[in-house]
Amino acid sequence: MAIKKLGKQTVKLENPPSIVSTASIVGSKEGQGPLKDKFDIILDDDLWGEDSWEKAESKMLENAVKLAIDKGNLSPDEIDYMFGGDLLNQIISASFAARQLSIPFFGLYGACSTMTESLSLASMIIDGGYADHCIATTSSHFAAAERQFRFPLEMGSQRAPSAQWTATASGAALLSKEGDGPYITHVTTGKVIDFGIKDSNNMGAAMAPSAADTILRHFKDTGLQPKDYDLIITGDLGEVGKDLAIKLLKENNLDISSNFTDCGVEIFDIKNQDVGSGASGCGCSASVFCGHFYSLLKSGELNKILILSTGALMSPTSTLQGESIPGIAHAVAIQRRL
Amino acid sequence: MAIKKLGKQTVKLENPPSIVSTASIVGSKEGQGPLKDKFDIILDDDLWGEDSWEKAESKMLENAVKLAIDKGNLSPDEIDYMFGGDLLNQIISASFAARQLSIPFFGLYGACSTMTESLSLASMIIDGGYADHCIATTSSHFAAAERQFRFPLEMGSQRAPSAQWTATASGAALLSKEGDGPYITHVTTGKVIDFGIKDSNNMGAAMAPSAADTILRHFKDTGLQPKDYDLIITGDLGEVGKDLAIKLLKENNLDISSNFTDCGVEIFDIKNQDVGSGASGCGCSASVFCGHFYSLLKSGELNKILILSTGALMSPTSTLQGESIPGIAHAVAIQRRL
Repeated sequence: MAIKKLGKQTVKLENPPSIVSTASIVGSKEGQGPLKDKFDIILDDDLWGEDSWEKAESKMLENAVKLAIDKGNLSPDEIDYMFGGDLLNQIISASFAARQLSIPFFGLYGACSTMTESLSLASMIIDGGYADHCIATTSSHFAAAERQFRFPLEMGSQRAPSAQWTATASGAALLSKEGDGPYITHVTTGKVIDFGIKDSNNMGAAMAPSAADTILRHFKDTGLQPKDYDLIITGDLGEVGKDLAIKLLKENNLDISSNFTDCGVEIFDIKNQDVGSGASGCGCSASVFCGHFYSLLKSGELNKILILSTGALMSPTSTLQGESIPGIAHAVAIQRRL
Repeated sequence: MAIKKLGKQTVKLENPPSIVSTASIVGSKEGQGPLKDKFDIILDDDLWGEDSWEKAESKMLENAVKLAIDKGNLSPDEIDYMFGGDLLNQIISASFAARQLSIPFFGLYGACSTMTESLSLASMIIDGGYADHCIATTSSHFAAAERQFRFPLEMGSQRAPSAQWTATASGAALLSKEGDGPYITHVTTGKVIDFGIKDSNNMGAAMAPSAADTILRHFKDTGLQPKDYDLIITGDLGEVGKDLAIKLLKENNLDISSNFTDCGVEIFDIKNQDVGSGASGCGCSASVFCGHFYSLLKSGELNKILILSTGALMSPTSTLQGESIPGIAHAVAIQRRL
């Protein structure tokens, strides 16, 4: 068997799975942002006809998965595994969607790192020969997340400038053994990294060290350099976290500033949409990858990207008990042609 | 490449990973039960010197992982991946333990199905050549779970006879590419199954249909029969759910009653320990497998088992919003010698 492990944390896929299709569904605010033409469905009403935000979130995830499968000309019963999770307690969005879809289900929790966590596992499982087709998916919903993690919207709490706006969004990617790309070629799995940030209104700062750690590890393990990618993309560091990640990497002699962006900066017009430091939430990198960057890879405007969803690992309970907020980031390398 | 997929939901591992070592840590009540001599550590005090139950749970998981790695004569930096999760919101027990351990981490949420979910993924990742050593782990804590899912203990709420007692327990298994067994040979991944149960005091009934579904699927996919296993073991159906699973399977012409047990029935002396229908919680099947059944496999008292951790997928929010409680169960087949 060829060596699949590179260095400490990276895997090189021998038979890179193809991302056959993707789907993205976003809320009304996200649908007014700069990427508005990139999403499959923009909701007029963030309840989407449901009687709770939580149910609306689950419906978004379910429909994103269905649409991705449909675009790939498959049916749910042809999918071997669904890898998914979300921010809600006990990942009810993903679990209840998995019930409706009836696909064998691996539930994940990686906070906002879930999109690349699911892509990582799905691609190794396909590459290893255990599946022909897998779904990788996640979602988040501003109103459901606010009342679970911070305050009920009805309180009208003021937001700190460094705070991020949880994206109301879902993305799903259909990965297959066969297909004409783009292909997932490498997976770098993150460790939980903690720089002692305790301010839940500054998630970007909490997540930046983990993003920097996984990026450093990816280049060390593979021997690649930032210029080998057209773009390095983080999940939802926002403006504060993005700047911190660049700074942390510079301190480690790695300059990614010329080809680096963040989905949490891309999805909103930060100056004019009153979103603090940018977007966050599992659905942010999911919808921006599935809606935007995937189409740039398909069209050839991008040839090779490294994308890392980034998660802040905390609960209101851990914060109340005085814990800091560690982060985690998983990277997948994707290229248009093999 | 040989065919690894059997039927719709089962994978046959070509190079079955060895479960090199396990560790189990349980609370004081579990340490008074019939399996008291099987666990590595029994806590005198369920806070274990911490100032909250949540921190005690995370400490249990962290120490179970360390002990399993130590018994396998490895160090944490030799472990490629840790697959783990728990019942607490945002899986803080596993995430904070992963921070301390500094092992690349895939966070999972499968409710009480997490032990076999983690064993399933870890064994495919090793079999596929992506890792030499993985940890599969989970935990639960009675007091932390009660206040999160039901009522604070201080309220002294009465418990229904069908209710189950969340085990204060953690288990960790070290899986390696090489080793002298027992070996994981098959993985059958469950779907989310919902029979419409809405009573969160009857989790056994909520989970039994998913256990039955995965057991049926396993035998259909593999062509094996119940008598091919020395024992078929579910995670935490308790007495109510265990009887229901037997009944559901009989209706489908599969009789497993002669060699079937449930970790939630095994861990407590149900008649005398006032635990309702038996134990539940991720840590139940984790500690009973890692403490009890693993040693029976090592000693040769058991040669071949099928074990399914079983999860009830709900949150207090989904229940308040009128949702039913679906279940999920993942099965792994383990045998002493290849």
